[in-house]
Amino acid sequence: MTNNYSIPKEFLFAVIDAAIKYDNRNDIAIIYSKNPCVAAGVFTKNVVKSPSVVYDMERIKYPIAYGIVVNSGNANTCTGQQGMDDVITMSETVKTGLKISDGEVFVSSTGVIGVPMPMERIIPAIKRGIDKIGEYTLMDAAKAIMTTDTFPKIHSKTFIIEGKTVTISGITKGSGMISPNMATTLSFIITDAEIEKSALDNALRQSIEQSFNKITVDGDMSTNDTVLILANGACGNTVIKSDTLEYDVFKQALDEITMSLSQMIVKDGEGATKTICIELNGAATKSDAERLARKVADSMLVRTAVYGNDPNWGRIMCALGGAGVAFSPYKVDIFIGKVQIVADGLGTKMDAEASKALDVKDVNLRIDLREGVYNAKVFTCDLTEGYIKINAHYTT
Amino acid sequence: MTNNYSIPKEFLFAVIDAAIKYDNRNDIAIIYSKNPCVAAGVFTKNVVKSPSVVYDMERIKYPIAYGIVVNSGNANTCTGQQGMDDVITMSETVKTGLKISDGEVFVSSTGVIGVPMPMERIIPAIKRGIDKIGEYTLMDAAKAIMTTDTFPKIHSKTFIIEGKTVTISGITKGSGMISPNMATTLSFIITDAEIEKSALDNALRQSIEQSFNKITVDGDMSTNDTVLILANGACGNTVIKSDTLEYDVFKQALDEITMSLSQMIVKDGEGATKTICIELNGAATKSDAERLARKVADSMLVRTAVYGNDPNWGRIMCALGGAGVAFSPYKVDIFIGKVQIVADGLGTKMDAEASKALDVKDVNLRIDLREGVYNAKVFTCDLTEGYIKINAHYTT
Repeated sequence: MTNNYSIPKEFLFAVIDAAIKYDNRNDIAIIYSKNPCVAAGVFTKNVVKSPSVVYDMERIKYPIAYGIVVNSGNANTCTGQQGMDDVITMSETVKTGLKISDGEVFVSSTGVIGVPMPMERIIPAIKRGIDKIGEYTLMDAAKAIMTTDTFPKIHSKTFIIEGKTVTISGITKGSGMISPNMATTLSFIITDAEIEKSALDNALRQSIEQSFNKITVDGDMSTNDTVLILANGACGNTVIKSDTLEYDVFKQALDEITMSLSQMIVKDGEGATKTICIELNGAATKSDAERLARKVADSMLVRTAVYGNDPNWGRIMCALGGAGVAFSPYKVDIFIGKVQIVADGLGTKMDAEASKALDVKDVNLRIDLREGVYNAKVFTCDLTEGYIKINAHYTT
Repeated sequence: MTNNYSIPKEFLFAVIDAAIKYDNRNDIAIIYSKNPCVAAGVFTKNVVKSPSVVYDMERIKYPIAYGIVVNSGNANTCTGQQGMDDVITMSETVKTGLKISDGEVFVSSTGVIGVPMPMERIIPAIKRGIDKIGEYTLMDAAKAIMTTDTFPKIHSKTFIIEGKTVTISGITKGSGMISPNMATTLSFIITDAEIEKSALDNALRQSIEQSFNKITVDGDMSTNDTVLILANGACGNTVIKSDTLEYDVFKQALDEITMSLSQMIVKDGEGATKTICIELNGAATKSDAERLARKVADSMLVRTAVYGNDPNWGRIMCALGGAGVAFSPYKVDIFIGKVQIVADGLGTKMDAEASKALDVKDVNLRIDLREGVYNAKVFTCDLTEGYIKINAHYTT
């Protein structure tokens, strides 16, 4: 999945080791389009935002962009005015180096909160990267943005519009401080499609609603969450507008990218051994469906039970009942994989079969509420000792 | 703390091993007052309720009660009509055995959800217990209601009203599926004070608001949470009414009981090595203060950082920012113990001192928002590998 990918035309990359936090690995990536791009972005709803998010939220309104500079190892959050000055310096260093005068370069950061950026190492590193722009791949960029990730996350898709091959490729990173109700972690998507800025914005917002906004690892909404998409039009197709057939084709490809990337984040959730899909069917309202599915996905008791192959469905009932949504417990059906473990709110005594259905890499928990017609899907991972180990000693 | 306690007059106890789930330990307790009692109770707000909770919620309205029969090892939840029949049978067995014709005996259960009660063992066990009523202590009852608890939880308090010594004693159990926004886990409080039923109800509701309703272990609201208090008047004091000096004296003693018991639950949270008190000061509204404090207390990232003595205050800022409450990050002060780790939203570089302040059994995290005058305190415990181990293999 991560070894076969295409790169949209006219995009170039550089990665550099600035020794921000990790030893002997690249921790800065520059994504650059030789053509001017339209851009769209979705950002964290956390009240505490990185200055890089504040900067990008403002600059995403501009008509033209050329790229993104991103670092791992330091979130540049809770760093005050100095933090904002550093964001501007990073963007300006790229613009100057690549002689960009008529468009924006976005800045993203991920890592520890509250530590000033080591600009004395970052700026020379960015300058070294500019000298080598084009000598690296999108996979190199995917690796450079990793923090506690155990594998790089990349997905690309090609499709035909007007006889021209269009490519969309995305990279993302996990794998803690991940929760729905927000944009997501850092994700960067690039395409050589020609598309109107407003159409790109619509497509991105709709696409993340069913992908990045439906994953949770630990219920904590990051201060730096960002999804950025750049479209440089290098394909030469007629500009794609909303509500057209071409828009639908583009949107479908984008959906594949965002779904695939968000699934990779869950798969690589800190300490995870399994992914869990919570399928909540038959709720009375859309918001009921989402609230119930998320409550189950955020339940530490459900996630540890899945880890232990323990078909402890009482924990699912308990989580549902605590979601603040009215429903009849006596209509609830629950399936673990294909095994019905609860019928009309009562156990079916299929525990042995259900335990086997939990002993797989991708667990499906389907809950039928039979209160209405609204459904929701939320994705999470199991909760293991690995999560504790990673997070008890992260800054030190 | 758990070895010195008094027993209110005219209360008797029995405990029995019914082999419900655990080997070689008592798992049923009967609490019985020879005098008729007034009773008050607070129950889970979970939509999915044990039939025992449904039964008690109805019967708590009756004017007279004599006792409680409680079992551990089986929650008798999601057990359908059979579950309700079993509750009635348990209560009636105690009433018949103890020749109670004019008052209620409440029923409580705790343990695994969705398994029918082994009534063929429970009913003979209750009958054996009735034969030996008075041969056991309140400590025996505290031990019989334990599930994953590592120590029994008991607290008592004596005080003087009208020259008479009044005693209040309570027992409780933890230590998973514990979250605020609800009553609590199982807690039983008995007193020989003479008090009006409405005054007892007021005192209990007010008292749990600052104690049981302010603790969280894992954010899951149990289906069986119950706090019951029985007052049998054996002291012979003039009946206590609301809004009197005597009521205040009684309430103060009750507050000590509920605070002490709820603190013991946190201390014994599954896998816990430390307690954490989140003190949120200076919020713009009372509900803001509680919401923010709870968001920090429920943050797995904060709780693992405390476990690792890691003064990773960025996780506290992140949790605050994700609570859905508006505030200025640039006014936030954070103290770990007496060490100020954040001033005006920025780090103070006191990490070494703060790490030492985390290396204690009772950690205090104080957050000053400086937005207003409202405060809240929420109590939780650190999150360790022990929680995962306990919960990955609970039913099996």
